[in-house]
Amino acid sequence: MAQVVTLTTDFGRESVYVAQMKAVLLGINPRLTIVDVTHEVPPQDIQAGAWILRQIVPRFPPGSFHLAVVDPGVGTDRPCLCASLDGRYLIAPDNGLITYVAEVLPIRAMVRLENPVYRLPKVSATFHGRDIMAPAAAWLSLGVTPDQLGPPHDAWVTLPERLAPTMAERQIHGRVVFVDRFGNLITNIEPTQLPAGVDVTITIGEITIHGMTKTYGERQSGEVVALVNSLGYLEIAVVNG
Amino acid sequence: MAQVVTLTTDFGRESVYVAQMKAVLLGINPRLTIVDVTHEVPPQDIQAGAWILRQIVPRFPPGSFHLAVVDPGVGTDRPCLCASLDGRYLIAPDNGLITYVAEVLPIRAMVRLENPVYRLPKVSATFHGRDIMAPAAAWLSLGVTPDQLGPPHDAWVTLPERLAPTMAERQIHGRVVFVDRFGNLITNIEPTQLPAGVDVTITIGEITIHGMTKTYGERQSGEVVALVNSLGYLEIAVVNG
Amino acid sequence: MAQVVTLTTDFGRESVYVAQMKAVLLGINPRLTIVDVTHEVPPQDIQAGAWILRQIVPRFPPGSFHLAVVDPGVGTDRPCLCASLDGRYLIAPDNGLITYVAEVLPIRAMVRLENPVYRLPKVSATFHGRDIMAPAAAWLSLGVTPDQLGPPHDAWVTLPERLAPTMAERQIHGRVVFVDRFGNLITNIEPTQLPAGVDVTITIGEITIHGMTKTYGERQSGEVVALVNSLGYLEIAVVNG
Repeated sequence: MAQVVTLTTDFGRESVYVAQMKAVLLGINPRLTIVDVTHEVPPQDIQAGAWILRQIVPRFPPGSFHLAVVDPGVGTDRPCLCASLDGRYLIAPDNGLITYVAEVLPIRAMVRLENPVYRLPKVSATFHGRDIMAPAAAWLSLGVTPDQLGPPHDAWVTLPERLAPTMAERQIHGRVVFVDRFGNLITNIEPTQLPAGVDVTITIGEITIHGMTKTYGERQSGEVVALVNSLGYLEIAVVNG
Repeated sequence: MAQVVTLTTDFGRESVYVAQMKAVLLGINPRLTIVDVTHEVPPQDIQAGAWILRQIVPRFPPGSFHLAVVDPGVGTDRPCLCASLDGRYLIAPDNGLITYVAEVLPIRAMVRLENPVYRLPKVSATFHGRDIMAPAAAWLSLGVTPDQLGPPHDAWVTLPERLAPTMAERQIHGRVVFVDRFGNLITNIEPTQLPAGVDVTITIGEITIHGMTKTYGERQSGEVVALVNSLGYLEIAVVNG
Repeated sequence: MAQVVTLTTDFGRESVYVAQMKAVLLGINPRLTIVDVTHEVPPQDIQAGAWILRQIVPRFPPGSFHLAVVDPGVGTDRPCLCASLDGRYLIAPDNGLITYVAEVLPIRAMVRLENPVYRLPKVSATFHGRDIMAPAAAWLSLGVTPDQLGPPHDAWVTLPERLAPTMAERQIHGRVVFVDRFGNLITNIEPTQLPAGVDVTITIGEITIHGMTKTYGERQSGEVVALVNSLGYLEIAVVNG
């Protein structure tokens, strides 16, 4: 069966680091299908990386592999992990990247990538994505099992805040978690958290929006609207703006 | 046989939208080879998308699939289409994206993507590329036929102008349709439309160029030249500039 | 066996030129796995292209194919080459791109891509990457041998300077060869050239750095440090800067 590995990093898409990781992946398993999710995570921004993984990993089927390298602690003694998330494998440094995706996919198992057999022969101090994590993903795709990669890891790092917004009486306090290239503000509020059949008022900075719209097409150009976007989140947008 | 699907969108290359579409494609057919043509079509610029498709689709062999998502009307009642272009399949919203490629490849059949069996179970109002078009392309690659995807569609949207330039006596009136990253101006004038063996004078803005050159190498740095570029179009360039 | 071809160009990632090359590659061999190394080599910067190839080609296994198109001389009579670098195939114009990788991988054979059977039927004057080099790589991946592509080529172009730095008594004179997106300065000095167990002093511009560090994590934010980076080169960096 064809096997898929996704890459999410802060290396910059055009950097030689990305191509070196692909050389390792394809050198071990030349049949892998590699999907670049993004290499433009803001440098060392673990929270942004965690948010992107939340949008992507659950969309791929069980049996897929997901390499995430946003790694300000590389070279210190923080471990590298492989977590089984309901059949999908996330390979990442232990720094909180897993936090948001673990809110929606149960962690079935987690190990530390310590077995030197499944690392590159020479591990650099500053590029564990290439020397430890990429080989682990490729070997897993060839049938190596997580328990062969290293010992169980039970106390992993999580980010201080959950992605979920704060609920209060008749109010939801969310935050803008991502700004897309059209300038749309994506919040952490999901539609199922909004009361059905009641009027909704959204306050953001000095702007108040009354009611939600279904699509950009049904409002006037320049109007500020709130809608549930295609990622499933409340989004604030300016129509055609 | 390995099968190829190309992607042409205005999502921005690093956006999670692109990766979500790939998750759908590979979730249905993990053996697909995906080619990113570009995700940097200027936002909602249907004409630019149509021009890019014209350069790309005919270069791929029959049996290839081409997903184009530049979709300002998403969420309105505009249909999504699958067109057979001499054996290549173009999957796109019905908004004129097909115009220029249909000038060079005959449309053999066109259907609307209405069969819910070949959509995602839940279709969002704002992301038909992921929820309707990507599944259609993936199912087609597995042997589903266009007529299974929905009913025939006979009156599709076309852009107001053809790509072809206007011919007058001893003159061709073209337009600049694309500016590449080197600053070269690419026009819609194709070499076969230029008279052979006669002197050519090109007027663009306040600049007049006498005669064409064959390659950048044969002229001086800084000189403004006209040549037939590798896409087959008349191009105005500054040598090494 | 799955076969890999890498692409290194100055076309700009989103340009239609890249997709047209992929159309040629996959039109000839639809089973190829294509890896985009970068399409953001600074325009016509052969030295930068040569440096990137040095970082990438040796990381891929023998039997891999590497297309490099940084080609200011396209349309002149400079040949296109295929070189066997210890089992890896580099396909590139003869303009020095091979210089740095040939310092670490022995050239086993080199031919000129002159056989019209393995070019596109129509070769443009300005896009040999698509019309000559891409077909050569694809045909090689299907079992065509280099000697079928054209005659041996014995006198190829090399860049004036080797990548290696200049050695003097108790001093190494290197140069900054690449600046990454974090602003780190990557030099051409490799760690094996540094004396072991002695104090090292690095002078760059007006800054003097005493001693090397192993990782970013062990120093203070804002401090200027020197370390051996994950590419194997001496790198000057500002911690978290």
